[in-house]
Amino acid sequence: MHKEENGEIDPDFINRLAGFLGFEEERVRHLFEKKYLARNWGKHEHMLRFDKEISHIEHGTVLYEKGSSFEIIMGFPKIRRAMVLDPTLKKHFNGLSKLAIEEKMNGYNVRVAQVDGEILAITRSGYICPYTTERANVKLNLEFFDAFPELVLYGEMVGPDNPYVPKTIYDIESVEFFIFDIREKNTGKPLPTAKRRELMEKYGFFQVRSFGEIPLETAPEEIAGIIRELGKNEHEGVVIKDPEMVLPSLKYTSSQSNCSDLRHAFKFYNEAGRDYMLSRIVREGFQTVEWNEDETEFKERCIQLGESILTPLRESIRNVKDGERLYEEVRIRVRDLKTVTEFENYLKRLGVDTIFETPQLAGNEYLVNIKKVNKSTNDKTQAIWEGELW
Amino acid sequence: MHKEENGEIDPDFINRLAGFLGFEEERVRHLFEKKYLARNWGKHEHMLRFDKEISHIEHGTVLYEKGSSFEIIMGFPKIRRAMVLDPTLKKHFNGLSKLAIEEKMNGYNVRVAQVDGEILAITRSGYICPYTTERANVKLNLEFFDAFPELVLYGEMVGPDNPYVPKTIYDIESVEFFIFDIREKNTGKPLPTAKRRELMEKYGFFQVRSFGEIPLETAPEEIAGIIRELGKNEHEGVVIKDPEMVLPSLKYTSSQSNCSDLRHAFKFYNEAGRDYMLSRIVREGFQTVEWNEDETEFKERCIQLGESILTPLRESIRNVKDGERLYEEVRIRVRDLKTVTEFENYLKRLGVDTIFETPQLAGNEYLVNIKKVNKSTNDKTQAIWEGELW
Repeated sequence: MHKEENGEIDPDFINRLAGFLGFEEERVRHLFEKKYLARNWGKHEHMLRFDKEISHIEHGTVLYEKGSSFEIIMGFPKIRRAMVLDPTLKKHFNGLSKLAIEEKMNGYNVRVAQVDGEILAITRSGYICPYTTERANVKLNLEFFDAFPELVLYGEMVGPDNPYVPKTIYDIESVEFFIFDIREKNTGKPLPTAKRRELMEKYGFFQVRSFGEIPLETAPEEIAGIIRELGKNEHEGVVIKDPEMVLPSLKYTSSQSNCSDLRHAFKFYNEAGRDYMLSRIVREGFQTVEWNEDETEFKERCIQLGESILTPLRESIRNVKDGERLYEEVRIRVRDLKTVTEFENYLKRLGVDTIFETPQLAGNEYLVNIKKVNKSTNDKTQAIWEGELW
Repeated sequence: MHKEENGEIDPDFINRLAGFLGFEEERVRHLFEKKYLARNWGKHEHMLRFDKEISHIEHGTVLYEKGSSFEIIMGFPKIRRAMVLDPTLKKHFNGLSKLAIEEKMNGYNVRVAQVDGEILAITRSGYICPYTTERANVKLNLEFFDAFPELVLYGEMVGPDNPYVPKTIYDIESVEFFIFDIREKNTGKPLPTAKRRELMEKYGFFQVRSFGEIPLETAPEEIAGIIRELGKNEHEGVVIKDPEMVLPSLKYTSSQSNCSDLRHAFKFYNEAGRDYMLSRIVREGFQTVEWNEDETEFKERCIQLGESILTPLRESIRNVKDGERLYEEVRIRVRDLKTVTEFENYLKRLGVDTIFETPQLAGNEYLVNIKKVNKSTNDKTQAIWEGELW
């Protein structure tokens, strides 16, 4: 009913959508024109996604028709960063007595929800990822969604078979979903942390590690201790939450996580964002001052930083000099070979340049190695080796 | 005759200027509107400067009426960077047998020329700096300009009394002008390197150090050696020239110079350009691969890089934490106190936030300390210490 014909969107659809969002029709039309409101494709074409934050609606929010109205799955709330723990926590969580501390895992953000009877995995930007959707259906206890069709799981897909952020540091063989938030459809209202943990435990879901509830008063010091421990195993950091989930959460990360980000960024120095690089470097500066490090610790931090930048940079530059192409090697594990084709088309549609290798049987599943080509860094580096000027 | 009245530029002036430049009148009017062509102020109001590269005219080019026509002082030709010496030099200077190698000094680019009987110092952007102008009149042999009124000196103002780039590494007590290029007015035609050196020697000018002429064949290797030596004293690098000055020059810098730039950039991390930082880091990567460094040398480079970034960053963050304001302390040395006032107004007009201290008599001159306030980094850092999120 609402499909575009000759590029025109059905006026009745616009009218109903405007009514649902509380926007003027003209504004809705404008959002479509600017592609701030865009469609998924293929069998999920009816699912709209906000490609930009609009009014109170988060970027990545997904919206689709349900009955005579619409249903919304709100995007990931942006979790802002504490650059220093003191006084930031006391200022931000002013009035609370306790804070819930949970691990921030290094994986791929995904929402899982039941839509029209199907379990779908929705990415941070509001795409329906076919691979993540297959994994969610294989890995998760689907009974939960029948019991709570109105709830959306917000979690992290973690492990080596994650084609976006593959990590081996969590001792996971393939991939698992670690839930860190549950929110209601439409309202986006979150469950309090204790309630969420209880519910997830009941259904046997993996959850991000909890460091319990900590008094606000001692939180900066205690979190610094947790961060140091997490850093030793290259773990990323923590998310600091109001246990009632009324105030927005904050994040704080380990030096090792900053350096790990930098290693990745400088491997592909010509595609990584300049601000991304700088922010990770500046965090190192604040952490060493806040933690009052002595000259030995500081020197160690300088070495870590320098090596995190220069080692991957040297490797990429050398590889190109030696005639190799720069790529990132990732892997997926699927039950159904159709998922491989769907995922390949999906990445192509998103503009990711990949080479899919032949699937290998592994038990009742298939492993597929994927090379993600980093064309920009590759071409730039090669041009320099051929004598091009900066 | 050509002054704007009520914001309107004299049509006759536009007409003559368009004729001189070979542009349509409409285009000239557009350049003024966009401020791509802008006026200096005060007594130099009649001097126009190109605030953008337009057609073949370099950014910073200056233009003024002379008799019934105009005279042009061309901007600094952009000197592009060789990221690696081999094969870049052979490719770029293909066909030449020898290259002239000269030191690239770390100072402030300035053109000095006689305009309407006055000796003026013109900055890279085409401003007439009153301080640099005074210093040029004090320091340079002015007879040269009477003998060659049609020639423009392109040089580097170097030394501790340089309020833009103060450096003590050159063993200069105050400031001196080191000439590296001489070009004709209007045409911008450069003198061959040997001719330029001979002429400058005759008039007793300082010149940038020459490393002589080197065969193209062995240049990459020889320059690498020169760069290593220069780096030991924190000197910046070299400019590699076609001795006839027909092909454009190239530059190549030492690791120490990259690190020195980074130390400055990270001291004022919130105002320094992201691309500026990244390019200096990437150069380190190419140099270590091109020079085939072993693990000991590489480790040393990593430490240098890490410390060049984190040491100034820590210092700035600490200083703000301790309630200090971040500024850069520079100094000028003037003969006439009027120059101090003019320079203060000049910097204000350019939007530089400064605190001028009381002039101190030093021989027959005055020393004035100037604090250049780095508001952006200061405010950002202070906000973080007060608990603001990133």
